[in-house]
Amino acid sequence: MAGSPSRAAGRRLQLPLLCLFLQGATAVLFAVFVRYNHKTDAALWHRGNHSNADNEFYFRYPSFQDVHAMVFVGFGFLMVFLQRYGFSSVGFTFLLAAFALQWSTLVQGFLHSFHSGHIHVGVESMINADFCVGAVLISSGALLGKTGPAQLLLMALLEVVLFGINEFVLLHLLGVRDAGGSMTIHTFGAYFGLVLSRVLYRPQLEKSKHRQGSVYHSDLFAMIGTIFLWIFWPSFNSALTALGTGQHRTALNTYYSLAASTLSTFALSALVGEDGRLDMVHIQNAALAGGVVVGTSSEMMLTPFGALAAGFLAGTVSTLGYKFFTPILESKFKVQDTSGVHNLHGMPGVLGALLGVLVAGLATHEAYGDGLERVFPLIAESQRSATSQAMYQLFGLFVTLMFASVGGGLGGLLLKLPFLDSPLDSQCYEDQVHWQVPGEHEDEAQRPLRVEEADTQA
Amino acid sequence: MAGSPSRAAGRRLQLPLLCLFLQGATAVLFAVFVRYNHKTDAALWHRGNHSNADNEFYFRYPSFQDVHAMVFVGFGFLMVFLQRYGFSSVGFTFLLAAFALQWSTLVQGFLHSFHSGHIHVGVESMINADFCVGAVLISSGALLGKTGPAQLLLMALLEVVLFGINEFVLLHLLGVRDAGGSMTIHTFGAYFGLVLSRVLYRPQLEKSKHRQGSVYHSDLFAMIGTIFLWIFWPSFNSALTALGTGQHRTALNTYYSLAASTLSTFALSALVGEDGRLDMVHIQNAALAGGVVVGTSSEMMLTPFGALAAGFLAGTVSTLGYKFFTPILESKFKVQDTSGVHNLHGMPGVLGALLGVLVAGLATHEAYGDGLERVFPLIAESQRSATSQAMYQLFGLFVTLMFASVGGGLGGLLLKLPFLDSPLDSQCYEDQVHWQVPGEHEDEAQRPLRVEEADTQA
Amino acid sequence: MAGSPSRAAGRRLQLPLLCLFLQGATAVLFAVFVRYNHKTDAALWHRGNHSNADNEFYFRYPSFQDVHAMVFVGFGFLMVFLQRYGFSSVGFTFLLAAFALQWSTLVQGFLHSFHSGHIHVGVESMINADFCVGAVLISSGALLGKTGPAQLLLMALLEVVLFGINEFVLLHLLGVRDAGGSMTIHTFGAYFGLVLSRVLYRPQLEKSKHRQGSVYHSDLFAMIGTIFLWIFWPSFNSALTALGTGQHRTALNTYYSLAASTLSTFALSALVGEDGRLDMVHIQNAALAGGVVVGTSSEMMLTPFGALAAGFLAGTVSTLGYKFFTPILESKFKVQDTSGVHNLHGMPGVLGALLGVLVAGLATHEAYGDGLERVFPLIAESQRSATSQAMYQLFGLFVTLMFASVGGGLGGLLLKLPFLDSPLDSQCYEDQVHWQVPGEHEDEAQRPLRVEEADTQA
Repeated sequence: MAGSPSRAAGRRLQLPLLCLFLQGATAVLFAVFVRYNHKTDAALWHRGNHSNADNEFYFRYPSFQDVHAMVFVGFGFLMVFLQRYGFSSVGFTFLLAAFALQWSTLVQGFLHSFHSGHIHVGVESMINADFCVGAVLISSGALLGKTGPAQLLLMALLEVVLFGINEFVLLHLLGVRDAGGSMTIHTFGAYFGLVLSRVLYRPQLEKSKHRQGSVYHSDLFAMIGTIFLWIFWPSFNSALTALGTGQHRTALNTYYSLAASTLSTFALSALVGEDGRLDMVHIQNAALAGGVVVGTSSEMMLTPFGALAAGFLAGTVSTLGYKFFTPILESKFKVQDTSGVHNLHGMPGVLGALLGVLVAGLATHEAYGDGLERVFPLIAESQRSATSQAMYQLFGLFVTLMFASVGGGLGGLLLKLPFLDSPLDSQCYEDQVHWQVPGEHEDEAQRPLRVEEADTQA
Repeated sequence: MAGSPSRAAGRRLQLPLLCLFLQGATAVLFAVFVRYNHKTDAALWHRGNHSNADNEFYFRYPSFQDVHAMVFVGFGFLMVFLQRYGFSSVGFTFLLAAFALQWSTLVQGFLHSFHSGHIHVGVESMINADFCVGAVLISSGALLGKTGPAQLLLMALLEVVLFGINEFVLLHLLGVRDAGGSMTIHTFGAYFGLVLSRVLYRPQLEKSKHRQGSVYHSDLFAMIGTIFLWIFWPSFNSALTALGTGQHRTALNTYYSLAASTLSTFALSALVGEDGRLDMVHIQNAALAGGVVVGTSSEMMLTPFGALAAGFLAGTVSTLGYKFFTPILESKFKVQDTSGVHNLHGMPGVLGALLGVLVAGLATHEAYGDGLERVFPLIAESQRSATSQAMYQLFGLFVTLMFASVGGGLGGLLLKLPFLDSPLDSQCYEDQVHWQVPGEHEDEAQRPLRVEEADTQA
Repeated sequence: MAGSPSRAAGRRLQLPLLCLFLQGATAVLFAVFVRYNHKTDAALWHRGNHSNADNEFYFRYPSFQDVHAMVFVGFGFLMVFLQRYGFSSVGFTFLLAAFALQWSTLVQGFLHSFHSGHIHVGVESMINADFCVGAVLISSGALLGKTGPAQLLLMALLEVVLFGINEFVLLHLLGVRDAGGSMTIHTFGAYFGLVLSRVLYRPQLEKSKHRQGSVYHSDLFAMIGTIFLWIFWPSFNSALTALGTGQHRTALNTYYSLAASTLSTFALSALVGEDGRLDMVHIQNAALAGGVVVGTSSEMMLTPFGALAAGFLAGTVSTLGYKFFTPILESKFKVQDTSGVHNLHGMPGVLGALLGVLVAGLATHEAYGDGLERVFPLIAESQRSATSQAMYQLFGLFVTLMFASVGGGLGGLLLKLPFLDSPLDSQCYEDQVHWQVPGEHEDEAQRPLRVEEADTQA
């Protein structure tokens, strides 16, 4: 396609070889290390005197399925908004997620559940792996259209490791609470991707500008992603919270927060829109900020009002970010953030972390009663005061920003390796670089790819 | 856009100000009145000696998620069938639902769960709120394309209150059974919307006739809505029925009824279609009538055969309604019912109420055994005979029709307030009135809006 | 449409009369034979001393809903890839499934749960019926675009019976294990459809070749199907396995297998693709082969590594099948397999059966502990050795292939009955034969149907 035959031959092999190598290596590591946990193993479970109804599967699996739908349907279709990049958006999401969930099972397993030489897996590890995939897909949203699939797989290879370490530091070393991942998933994923996008800055990207917008139908496909993310977000935030009131309260808070962020998004979108018209980009994205902003605090006694207020704020900040900050991010900071992850995950994630600081700092024995043990075990066991917990939460945010920034920088250097196949500036946001693409209409032949400067650049 | 600058400026502010006001007022009311219930509150739950597995969350939340998917994915995409109104269909559904679920939490809370000065919320209130949203979206289906988003929000403001009162009268004052809402949701929502549409009758609507049909892809998007409504309807009808056999039987009956309505819809659509060809409008809508028609009776001992027969009848009536009655509804009764809610929700809802009368009248202690207490508590406690319960069910239908008609009339007057922004007759069913719309194809500039008589009308 | 008026009139009546007859006959059989089982019946359940939380509904219904979504959303949209056959793909899937689930409830009921003159239904019968529907839809995938809806209904009428008998022979007479249906669903459905397609071979099918490919948007719609099948497959395989660790382990194994088949599919698709470009057909289909291949063994102690290896192999074989074997299947074996069910269900199904032979043969008391009773009751009760169980599994595969082949042959003869309405060779893959189809664009009139040789052929 682009330039010399040897380059084409190189690309032909890069993706398949990387897929085969990563899958092969993962399989070997699974063979050596991964075992069923005692809730999954036929023999182990029955040694204990358990009833089948007690199996954690029944408490977590419905949440897992919702999370799984968000990752594959939600993220996959949300990114289909680009007019000529639908195959890549949904396809690369699929590929990245399928690899990252395996790799994350290993990394998180070594860090969290490595006993007697083995990693033990079950529904909790499935949810944790899907959460990590969420962070990887957030990062890929900043790069959308400007990287090839082999680059994205390498990014995932690195990011999953750093995600796991950051999560381990926060949850296990610092005793930070972050059930829905305002910090570990959204803040980490967003800033990792943004810093990476900064390193990969393309000054000539306007050569692909004509493909950067949406068309009518691509916006409708993207709304499939939006709506599935929106409806299942209560399950996302509650998937790993404490059984009983913990999951119940988390789901309820998230439900309210999302409703409020939807109203503030419509309000602000019309307010700042040309002629008062709504902008699909805002509705597709900013309406979801309510889910991000309560990621840390929705398991806490946030109160229904607190959830509404948080969601309202997040929708407002996110919409204004799309309108006013994204252009500045590109022009001043040289960060090309294709799907606006700074507005949907970055700022709302940081806000969510700060909200967690506030709500943790207000925790009292009276408000949580015997439930305190489940939400703030260190406070319940008098190892920490609420204020001290709040300080740890704040410190967790800084740790996350540091890991994300350094990680994104490293990732950028990795993805710039010269032998990696990357689309030309004039071929960004274009499916045909990676896919055999049929025409838009029945009788149309395959669309010719515009390769104006292909010769000069290759 | 249309006419004078001051009008444009007015519209620019109407939607955002209304959103901000409604969200602000709702948040204040939440702050004052709404509290976690004892299954959601960290402290209250643990005071009782409950096991986490007993938390109602585990019995209701999977149903809630299915209902939530129906409301946002199902209704949202079902209405995308119009060729140029996809953004509005899915977007305004989203906005309306996000507001109405909050407002309904308050209204239903005041009426159903107001204790010691507070409304107590949890998974049941989430399901109830989503049910009320269902009625609001049904009404909006009759208005689709002919009202602006501010008008729809005002409609919801009124309708939610009347929905709550009607539901309170039926379920609490009259002791009527209506778990899946044949009366409270479908009949109420449909006739509220139809009467409202009557009041807003537009004699010049043919100016927008060229946009009233579908295109190939918009029909496929609409099928996404249809299928999600269809598959999850068993969860809708069973979401709030008695635990155990109640939910089990309700889901089973709904499953059978929907299967039968699908077959009768295909049969009738081919029978009345030109050249025996099927009509997508019928498949998208009438195949769902089986879910509506067993809304009241599916928790009862309807029998599997009864479910099939009911579904078969509903699909038949609904398809014939689309073919023969919708044109009459417009020409004779001056009701412009954009998405045919009279056929999908109105007639099948009334049929469902009557089926409930029949099945309740046939209830015996023998058939229900100890389960009678859960389905017909007043019969079980000998406060009513089965015949008397049947009479109350019938009376409930009349009450519902009365509330819906009066409410729809009031709603129509409200929406006709002259300062409210409403699309011109020539701009109905057109996204560009409310949205920044990209072209259909990659290289196309934004479509010009056809505003033939804009000057004269504004 | 085609030829003489009497033929058109005949077609006008064929589909509606068949729908009405099948629905009527089914309803009568339901009235006579079908009753609520004791977990669904209001009176029966309370006679036992059961807690509501014990009701099987809570353990199986979430899985059922996922299976239901796969059948209607997954299969329905997966087949929308054809450029002019979207209405038929999703519509006929809908029709076929709605009929087959009722008919299968009867057939499976007579074979599996017929006691004291009645069939007893509940959530298990719903799942079993949906499983049978899966097989019918797989078969229809081979015929896609070349048969009318009346033909498909007749196919279902026959196939459901043979499916039920084959399943009965395997599970009840031979004691074969096949929880996720590698044999009973995938192998049976695929080879039934392929043999049937062989009998209906159309030598002149190239007259419709210009409609056989996809367009850009139809491929995106198909990806909706793919992703929903992919995410819910763990629920499919585990829907009917033993409660507790059985369901838990099955879901986990399937999750891993699918991840690996996705990576091998991307690898192989790029490797064999022109210029190293990916092919949407592979991604849409072969990535799912990981779910098929562990249908038999995912409830067993397959180990996570085993699941990855199986998925990897299945994705590889399936992708290579699309690239190299499908053309041979048509040219040499005269099997026109529209959606490539041989690659997605046939070969991976047979591989899955063989994997089941292997894993069953390796079963030990040590590995399964007290769980052996739930997975291999006959081995646990010492009625069989592991080797003997393996032999029975292998025999089950041969029985399935025999039933599928003979059944598909019979089906082909049935569908060739001369009075059945079947599209002309020049009108295959065309919605307009069966549907009233709007244009692709707003201002376009209905597309003219190309009926070049209609006169000569009719």
